[in-house]
Amino acid sequence: MLEVNRQILLRKRPVGVPAIGDFEEAEAPLGVPAAGEVLLKNLYLSIDPAIRGWMSEAKSYLPPIGIGEPIRSGALSEIIESKAEGWSVGQVVQALAAWESYSVVSSRMLHGNVRTIEGIPLSTMLSVLGGTGLTAYFGLLAVGKPTKGETVLVSAAAGGVGSIVGQIAKLEGCRAVGLTGSDEKCSWLTDELGYDAAINYKTTNLRPAMDEACPDGIDVFFDSVGGEILNTALTRLNHHGRVVVCGAISQINDAKLPPGPSNYLRLLAKSARMEGFTTLDFASRYDEARADLARWIREGRIRYRDEIVEGLDEAPAHLLRLFSGEHRGKLLVKLADAEV
Amino acid sequence: MLEVNRQILLRKRPVGVPAIGDFEEAEAPLGVPAAGEVLLKNLYLSIDPAIRGWMSEAKSYLPPIGIGEPIRSGALSEIIESKAEGWSVGQVVQALAAWESYSVVSSRMLHGNVRTIEGIPLSTMLSVLGGTGLTAYFGLLAVGKPTKGETVLVSAAAGGVGSIVGQIAKLEGCRAVGLTGSDEKCSWLTDELGYDAAINYKTTNLRPAMDEACPDGIDVFFDSVGGEILNTALTRLNHHGRVVVCGAISQINDAKLPPGPSNYLRLLAKSARMEGFTTLDFASRYDEARADLARWIREGRIRYRDEIVEGLDEAPAHLLRLFSGEHRGKLLVKLADAEV
Repeated sequence: MLEVNRQILLRKRPVGVPAIGDFEEAEAPLGVPAAGEVLLKNLYLSIDPAIRGWMSEAKSYLPPIGIGEPIRSGALSEIIESKAEGWSVGQVVQALAAWESYSVVSSRMLHGNVRTIEGIPLSTMLSVLGGTGLTAYFGLLAVGKPTKGETVLVSAAAGGVGSIVGQIAKLEGCRAVGLTGSDEKCSWLTDELGYDAAINYKTTNLRPAMDEACPDGIDVFFDSVGGEILNTALTRLNHHGRVVVCGAISQINDAKLPPGPSNYLRLLAKSARMEGFTTLDFASRYDEARADLARWIREGRIRYRDEIVEGLDEAPAHLLRLFSGEHRGKLLVKLADAEV
Repeated sequence: MLEVNRQILLRKRPVGVPAIGDFEEAEAPLGVPAAGEVLLKNLYLSIDPAIRGWMSEAKSYLPPIGIGEPIRSGALSEIIESKAEGWSVGQVVQALAAWESYSVVSSRMLHGNVRTIEGIPLSTMLSVLGGTGLTAYFGLLAVGKPTKGETVLVSAAAGGVGSIVGQIAKLEGCRAVGLTGSDEKCSWLTDELGYDAAINYKTTNLRPAMDEACPDGIDVFFDSVGGEILNTALTRLNHHGRVVVCGAISQINDAKLPPGPSNYLRLLAKSARMEGFTTLDFASRYDEARADLARWIREGRIRYRDEIVEGLDEAPAHLLRLFSGEHRGKLLVKLADAEV
């Protein structure tokens, strides 16, 4: 049954936007799980901006990926051998695994038994019901804490996270305004996802566009972009406004840290806050969040779109797509079907 | 009884550090209070960094001071005529007034009847029991929310606010570490005020000095300085760390906004937050805060030092002293004694 383990390794640390040459394909024997570990067959890979961060040397909430190591990645995987209590062969799990056919990971890197949620495609467990949806859910509701009638501005609004954030904001009774990079994506946000307004940040003058789209100012800014978008949004924050720091895709490829938001002192003038988070902070509430998200999907109140390509070899090019800004929704790579 | 109203006006907006020539003396007839207003005799002026902000054109939580208008200032004042319900002649109040002998202000600009707190010098009502102490109290306790055993780093630690913040941190069972600009002030912090450690940021390499003084990282950074100090402290923040944004004296005189903290993404890596505030957010709790602060003073658990000069003419030079960094504690200008 078992094959060789095909892998994509980090060949060298990217300078700027990652290039295909930063990766290399390899084959390795399958790992053998030790006590507390499982052997996974990876079914889907989750393509996230966080991967670019892990490719750098900078410390973050996880150590950098080592040169010659497979690219760390969220994955949807099937347990094919278990030495970990409570985890058994045949379970399909969300895992922090890697770009490879098979991974050996500690059971601490596993979340949930995704088979338990019915009526929803398996791949959704890595998008709306995976880290992407949980990021939107906890970032908006637990960090941004919007209340009815407030204005929620979302950057990278057509991305995997942003496309969900705006819809949750609408469910909370907020005005949802999205920033994205094309008119086509603007239309998708307003016509399909229910955003109240969308701004093409590439073709509009940001300040007047924000003023028009957010006539009552900004109460929550859910930011995955950073740079000038963040800096401008800070000047439109209302009293007790909140900036949810989800990422900074605009600078994720910069070799040197660009200047920070020069308008951060607006936090002082407006008694506002800027707060970061990772979904790990809310691990005890994953079930509650997934139940809400699954219900909203079934009720048709959350719509979504996954861009799925097939084959491990496609993973590097799919990651690069994150930075070109041409995608909508969540990027996934399909590796295999479940065996059982 | 009444005299002419001596004033110090904003002659022109400062470029960089304010200069004596940005101010001009003037005389004016006394104002006459309308309904809801009072006529104040100003006894003490509070010299605060906020004044520099109000001298600029930039919008903040209050509009800029107009050219030719008296310099807005916190003050301790006696009501000598009242057209406002609940306020009567002879009351000594904290007021948002101006650099002038007499001010007419709306009763909304008045706080407290300072006569009600016994056994403490009147001038203290503008320092530890005034906006300065309230800023330290609410900024640390309500925004920073330190818990026992945490490390609280304070910039401008020998200033009016910072010198109180560290002492409250100690009362909460925290490790208090101060940043200041001379060895003499470092000694004052550790020997007199009870700070656990102090760093002379002018003569030490900031990163190793912070590591040594904060061996368990930084849980709360109470920042009144901004710039490189903020940027460096962000890299030492612990998980769920908090940056209390109280000001940015290092850049308050810059004509153009300097770059923001390039390390703001540490907020993401550490699930940390950066939050601004003004004491006005906590107006309903002023009495509680003053009672705590007064008790701590009487019990000898908070020590403080006010630098008081006499005469309205001294106000501009005293303000400039804020930016030279040579002062310790709170700067006040005494104008008059109470009449009753």
